[in-house]
Amino acid sequence: MKITIGDYLLKRLKEFNVKHIYGVPGDYNLLFLDHIEDMDGIEWVGNCNELNGSYAADGYARVNGMSALVTTFGVGELSAINGIAGAYAEDVPIVKITGIPSMSIMNNSSKYVHHSLGDGQYYKFYNMFREVTSAQTILSEMNAEREIDRVLTECYITKKPVYIGLPFDIVDTEIEVSGEKLNIDVKTNEETLKEFIKDVKELVSKSKGEMVLADYEVDRCNLSLEARNFVKVTGLPVSTTSMGKSAVNEYCDNFVGIYNGVLSSDSVKEAMNTSDVAFFFGVKLSDFTTACFNLVHENITVVEIHALHAKIGEKIYANILMKDVLHALLNNDINFKHKFKVEPKKAIKYIPEKNKELTQERFYQCIESILEKGDILLAETGTSFSGATSVRMPENSKFIGQPLWASIGYTLPALLGSQMADKNRRNILIIGDGSFQLTGQEVSTMIREDLHPIIFVINNDGYTIEKLIHGPERKYNEINMWDYKNLVNIFDLNKEKSISCKVQTEEDLIKAIDLANKNKDKLAFIELVMDSKDAPNSLIRLGGLLSEVNGY
Amino acid sequence: MKITIGDYLLKRLKEFNVKHIYGVPGDYNLLFLDHIEDMDGIEWVGNCNELNGSYAADGYARVNGMSALVTTFGVGELSAINGIAGAYAEDVPIVKITGIPSMSIMNNSSKYVHHSLGDGQYYKFYNMFREVTSAQTILSEMNAEREIDRVLTECYITKKPVYIGLPFDIVDTEIEVSGEKLNIDVKTNEETLKEFIKDVKELVSKSKGEMVLADYEVDRCNLSLEARNFVKVTGLPVSTTSMGKSAVNEYCDNFVGIYNGVLSSDSVKEAMNTSDVAFFFGVKLSDFTTACFNLVHENITVVEIHALHAKIGEKIYANILMKDVLHALLNNDINFKHKFKVEPKKAIKYIPEKNKELTQERFYQCIESILEKGDILLAETGTSFSGATSVRMPENSKFIGQPLWASIGYTLPALLGSQMADKNRRNILIIGDGSFQLTGQEVSTMIREDLHPIIFVINNDGYTIEKLIHGPERKYNEINMWDYKNLVNIFDLNKEKSISCKVQTEEDLIKAIDLANKNKDKLAFIELVMDSKDAPNSLIRLGGLLSEVNGY
Repeated sequence: MKITIGDYLLKRLKEFNVKHIYGVPGDYNLLFLDHIEDMDGIEWVGNCNELNGSYAADGYARVNGMSALVTTFGVGELSAINGIAGAYAEDVPIVKITGIPSMSIMNNSSKYVHHSLGDGQYYKFYNMFREVTSAQTILSEMNAEREIDRVLTECYITKKPVYIGLPFDIVDTEIEVSGEKLNIDVKTNEETLKEFIKDVKELVSKSKGEMVLADYEVDRCNLSLEARNFVKVTGLPVSTTSMGKSAVNEYCDNFVGIYNGVLSSDSVKEAMNTSDVAFFFGVKLSDFTTACFNLVHENITVVEIHALHAKIGEKIYANILMKDVLHALLNNDINFKHKFKVEPKKAIKYIPEKNKELTQERFYQCIESILEKGDILLAETGTSFSGATSVRMPENSKFIGQPLWASIGYTLPALLGSQMADKNRRNILIIGDGSFQLTGQEVSTMIREDLHPIIFVINNDGYTIEKLIHGPERKYNEINMWDYKNLVNIFDLNKEKSISCKVQTEEDLIKAIDLANKNKDKLAFIELVMDSKDAPNSLIRLGGLLSEVNGY
Repeated sequence: MKITIGDYLLKRLKEFNVKHIYGVPGDYNLLFLDHIEDMDGIEWVGNCNELNGSYAADGYARVNGMSALVTTFGVGELSAINGIAGAYAEDVPIVKITGIPSMSIMNNSSKYVHHSLGDGQYYKFYNMFREVTSAQTILSEMNAEREIDRVLTECYITKKPVYIGLPFDIVDTEIEVSGEKLNIDVKTNEETLKEFIKDVKELVSKSKGEMVLADYEVDRCNLSLEARNFVKVTGLPVSTTSMGKSAVNEYCDNFVGIYNGVLSSDSVKEAMNTSDVAFFFGVKLSDFTTACFNLVHENITVVEIHALHAKIGEKIYANILMKDVLHALLNNDINFKHKFKVEPKKAIKYIPEKNKELTQERFYQCIESILEKGDILLAETGTSFSGATSVRMPENSKFIGQPLWASIGYTLPALLGSQMADKNRRNILIIGDGSFQLTGQEVSTMIREDLHPIIFVINNDGYTIEKLIHGPERKYNEINMWDYKNLVNIFDLNKEKSISCKVQTEEDLIKAIDLANKNKDKLAFIELVMDSKDAPNSLIRLGGLLSEVNGY
């Protein structure tokens, strides 16, 4: 079939379920934006700026499975590169499409066009993106079909961002393509899988008990259901890292809590201490998820199961897919056993105390009490992430944070993406004021798109996480005070698409949540006033450890 | 003398007149921020986000001569990299300082810390910055003195940004240094200069007339006074590019107008057509400054004079400084001549018409009528830049724009920097709504710092420049409408540091300017409502050319 290069790229993106494309217009991408606007089943969502666009694309991909971001050359793509790097760090598949000059300009160093560095070197930005994407291409009339298919396949398999440079003058060029759906053929090596299962069987036969630690790769491989089934069938105690939070139902009887190195709860430590073998489902440990590498599982044999390979000790089992491994572990008569039991968990009932000022601890209890099945909870790096980590997530809910890349300001635009990816799920964001100031204007786009999340902005006057690490009385950790509650009115001129309120006490909080519940067809913006020194316990302890490690 | 590495870096920055340092705190830079806060004569200015910080540093350096930006590793520096790239493109000396992990972490790939990519590769960001800085270093206890001196020297000489990676654990380390002031020794090669003057003399002796085209390098080398003196003494007709605007006094008799390729005014074209030789003072031509390379000086012999070299035809004169060249041209009995004369320019008197809606054309007339000696006028890429290009700049005034890199959103934070660099100069910004939405929160920092610029936000409902290039009726060129006038109140809780108003007619505009004049101790925020299709004539013509070149 005959198709333009622009439409071919969109056709392939649609096969990966991409229904919205984020970004900012610029003159090297305008022609491609025409194709987006004109294409059925795909919608352009303009962002306030490109960094926000990249975060939105990240949030979208975490719920939707893949996303796309379009910017212009140089200025636009470099503004977005931090968000793409974050997606690279945390395995989020974003197709980064840059509208670039024509090849006659790119390869003619004597003419300096706008958005270039004025040095005749047009491939520098491409080189930068090579550092933070798993595949890159610059399209031409000759390679478009093959290269689009190659990089989208890499994006799907690696779950990392990829880069497509699209010269503006070939967007409308027609090419002849097969028209068939893209066939991605990644298969488990059955021999290796047999070997792996044999080795696991032997390990388990000699062990007194096993446990499971689940992390973010489970979510990225879309294997939460399989992981939940595994722990249900085997009955093994299960923990997740904060990065992998919500990979399993946290109300199930064998969920022992969040793993956080020496700062883990007693039940997590006990489960680890009584296990000889731990199955690590898609785990990558970092300082923030291990209390600065103060581990508690040194004496356990770890069976690492990753998206595309597994590892026991130094032995690597290449080309076996996590999905097939989870299936095989359950279907090969492996005698999993662990007597460890935790108390069944009761749902929190949050009863506001009269005239009581809001505290971090009580706020997160309230959040736990209102969470429902299917909800998406987003928590910004800092007090919000630490506090929300302690909130138990109900069945089929999803937790979104960014503990490895930890770029402040990320979650606000990420919420735009996660909410658009599935408008039927309630999205709740918790973000501190310091972080909010980086990217807060993206609330404007949520208003324009008529989205209805609940946004909690914790107004505690500055960068509390930094204060806990270093410089509690330093001026540099202070920020200018904003009238947060009224900001939403700046973006919602007719005051029809949002409600907002300011909360100081426990009773106010319940009233605000009631107001949000009565206005489910509106965006709810809730400013929470809290003391600047108040912080979740886990963060105070992490801050202390970081200070210590960093020698402050 | 004994000094900590942190203080040594600050001491050197102070020698280059850096009195304010921009950026955002993060745990890898907190220790260095302590040094900044504790150092006399240097002040920390926290920004809302890092991109804004980089733009502020750019604006500061354009007025102050050099600036510094501090961010944290990974997340912070990548958010700022677009601003650094812009400074690289347009020759603005920013010292980019990144607080990085300790060397024991940077070189130990098995431990993944936050703000890393989780792949054990810690030098990727450094590699990215190599593409957009003229010198780079990672400091150690052994190299700190030598490397700080080397990269600051490069920054000063090349007028381009440089990168310093500062491991957080060596900030407090004491080193032994000489204590002398940094001596930068760049000298003109006198033999080459003689050769150059000889060649110029010969050229001029054969020519019927000469002219001058001045561009941005004149400003970056701080040679505006010398350039002004040259055209005054020689009486040669002078033009500037839009990028070099304000390099000469635009009210002087031999100023013929802004050079813009075939879109130049008749007087510019005539001056060129009647010249055999053109002296290009620090010129770099790009599509935006030449009407897409539709030049009008093809038949002229160009004498290129750059910061560190000169060029006639294919002959390069290396290592001769612009300053010395300008001096030598005046002091070697060269017989410059040109009979070309322009009509003396009269000051515009702006008289508002009753009940007349504001138009682009009339607005820029008004701006010209209010500009005073010493003012700094900032104009955002798009309608604002095109419109402001036509505004005549009085003596000792300064024009700031970004026509080569052309990153929308740049000027708002740049204003923070340019205004702080010299609080005694009145700063006036003109920016469109589409651009404002990218970086608008930085008004918050101007309020906190109690700055008093005048900000005009043109509310014309979308990306007008893009509409002129392509897609005038397309949805992607629309933006969400904001209540701009009231936004400033969000940042100024007590409404003590700012005034704001909304302007729809010519009379409103005069009232708004009066209000600003009566409140010179406050920031003035003026929203201008204009028709979305209205645009400066020069932009309409440039848009048409870009459409044509791009084949839309």
